[in-house]
Amino acid sequence: MATSKNALPLHLQELQTPCLLLVERAFNANLEKMARHCAERRIHLRPHAKTHKSAAVAQAQINRGAGGVCCATLAEAELLADAVDSILLTSPFALDRHFARLLALNGRLNELICVVDHPKAVAQSEKFFTAANPLDVYLDLDPGRHRTGSVIGAEAIELAHRLHEAPHLNFRGIQCYAGHLMHVSSLKERQERVDDIWATVAAFKHELERQGVPCSTVSGGGTGSHDIDWRSNIATELQAGSYPFMDIEYASIGWPEAKLPFEQSLFVLTTVVSANTPGFATTDAGLKAFATDSVPPEVLAGLAHLARYVFQGDEHGGLVFESPHVEAVTGTQLLVTPPHCDPTINLYDHMFLVDESFEIKQSFEITARSGRQYRNV
Amino acid sequence: MATSKNALPLHLQELQTPCLLLVERAFNANLEKMARHCAERRIHLRPHAKTHKSAAVAQAQINRGAGGVCCATLAEAELLADAVDSILLTSPFALDRHFARLLALNGRLNELICVVDHPKAVAQSEKFFTAANPLDVYLDLDPGRHRTGSVIGAEAIELAHRLHEAPHLNFRGIQCYAGHLMHVSSLKERQERVDDIWATVAAFKHELERQGVPCSTVSGGGTGSHDIDWRSNIATELQAGSYPFMDIEYASIGWPEAKLPFEQSLFVLTTVVSANTPGFATTDAGLKAFATDSVPPEVLAGLAHLARYVFQGDEHGGLVFESPHVEAVTGTQLLVTPPHCDPTINLYDHMFLVDESFEIKQSFEITARSGRQYRNV
Repeated sequence: MATSKNALPLHLQELQTPCLLLVERAFNANLEKMARHCAERRIHLRPHAKTHKSAAVAQAQINRGAGGVCCATLAEAELLADAVDSILLTSPFALDRHFARLLALNGRLNELICVVDHPKAVAQSEKFFTAANPLDVYLDLDPGRHRTGSVIGAEAIELAHRLHEAPHLNFRGIQCYAGHLMHVSSLKERQERVDDIWATVAAFKHELERQGVPCSTVSGGGTGSHDIDWRSNIATELQAGSYPFMDIEYASIGWPEAKLPFEQSLFVLTTVVSANTPGFATTDAGLKAFATDSVPPEVLAGLAHLARYVFQGDEHGGLVFESPHVEAVTGTQLLVTPPHCDPTINLYDHMFLVDESFEIKQSFEITARSGRQYRNV
Repeated sequence: MATSKNALPLHLQELQTPCLLLVERAFNANLEKMARHCAERRIHLRPHAKTHKSAAVAQAQINRGAGGVCCATLAEAELLADAVDSILLTSPFALDRHFARLLALNGRLNELICVVDHPKAVAQSEKFFTAANPLDVYLDLDPGRHRTGSVIGAEAIELAHRLHEAPHLNFRGIQCYAGHLMHVSSLKERQERVDDIWATVAAFKHELERQGVPCSTVSGGGTGSHDIDWRSNIATELQAGSYPFMDIEYASIGWPEAKLPFEQSLFVLTTVVSANTPGFATTDAGLKAFATDSVPPEVLAGLAHLARYVFQGDEHGGLVFESPHVEAVTGTQLLVTPPHCDPTINLYDHMFLVDESFEIKQSFEITARSGRQYRNV
């Protein structure tokens, strides 16, 4: 029998599982450490809300010194706009109606900044914005991934001029987000590749300024490069998202001092619901309870025996024990570490903030969970 | 330039993308075909609601002859209980409080059936149910996957006796769901393996009846085996879930007549938001818009050029064109086929029912989307 040596407190059995537990002490420590890091390095912290999509978490970040948040989608920004007053929308927009929604959103916020990576957006914004009520924009540069961003070179220079000159746009700076480098496992390689991109952006910015286009802000970077970006002396705004929670992806890459700079604070609580075959057990957390785009989840606590976590379908996970003779007990609860925090959080409506005894202190709504319509649009 | 030959109607640009579109004609044809199939084969249809989690879809299935639905989780059943009056809960339960919730749910439904795969559940149900108000149960048998179910043999026979004799339980029959066989790509192999399982269940049931335990219902099967299960002469209830929608997983396996028995009716609508590199484009549908547990999504319509769909992060998908010279146009909209329908649907709050001209007729709420709490439990 899997012993109860590491069993979780019985009161957790009052929760509907699977659910997200956020350990308050680790969460707060992460927020404070990143705020301190950015203050000391003189880089503006604008955490990415695509990770948590939660008004409560955004407010906690702002209360500890973040100047606003990033959002990835219009709906995310619209759903978080009552909780924060400064939003950078980090993805470019394509449709006229996106600009109509941006105009409405602009009226609700103290500060709204969008990114542009194509001249088409300049013409589109003309229809909705005015010189008296302009749209703040960053030029989005492609760090080489070809996801979004203008390719760094002559066309991007030309686009920057257009943004700078457009009377209904307020050109604020540059975004260059190298998302593909956040999880490069070798710290040395990550440092070199991130440094290279910032050096390219620096040359681009200097050329722009030489041509008379001022460019006060340079935004980018993430949790994986937070201690690299500031060294560039070019990045002024850090878009880190995962640092409040961390996950297995971030736990599996190299870090200075050979340890995670932030603590894992977020876990999925799941319950063993079936255990009829020695060496195996079945939980209630499957494909709809964890992100499945990267590594598998890992069992952190709740069982004394080593178990590998596998998927057993939409609503079921599986435990494969190291010893084929282990028999698990139904009702056993487990804390499981999420593989990739952003899409895992997105599978829930709430996360429960717990203290060190796993007593629930608060429920944080995942306010802007993907697939949610904003006022039926 | 990617031409607009296959462009989608402009009015779709009024929708927030990514979103789910359900083509009404194909959806209705699927419901009718499965209802007819089950009526002709004299097998009771109890569609699995874990696929759609939608009160409206459940009602459409019941309106066309389904006798009730299956649910995978208690929350799913609780959230759908206002829309349907007969639910089979296909996963076993582990905690005392699950039985307390079952008792409350029992009072809301005309028919609630649970599955049991361990004697512990008999003792637990004693605390909550009574002889006057018993819980209807099926014995859950393991088809060899070791996910849930009692291993078919002496222990399962013993458990069936206990269920039959427990005064507060009403033993109704057997569940044996071979989920691991639904996507076996060779039709012949799938037929043989499904037939084998039903033959084993038949022998088990006959032995049970020989020992004086009546067993009127045998539940199981799915979309992948819907035309195999009835041939067993043992299965009486079909738990198919995916047939209203279908997906790439089901499109990629062998079928009689070498074609899909049901039409693909469900698609993700997405918009090209960036296209600065020939041969590539970026959409607004990424890891949070599609299930990522199986095959990649496939572009069905909206572009004249062949494009492979790849993931580019949480909120972005990518198009890789067959020709490296194709330049896509931002704002282009695409219909993309979901890889695995159940966890894809679960990423949205609604699906939009559209007619043949893609005019929106209705919005179906994903009522019981996973991660949603039922009355804050």
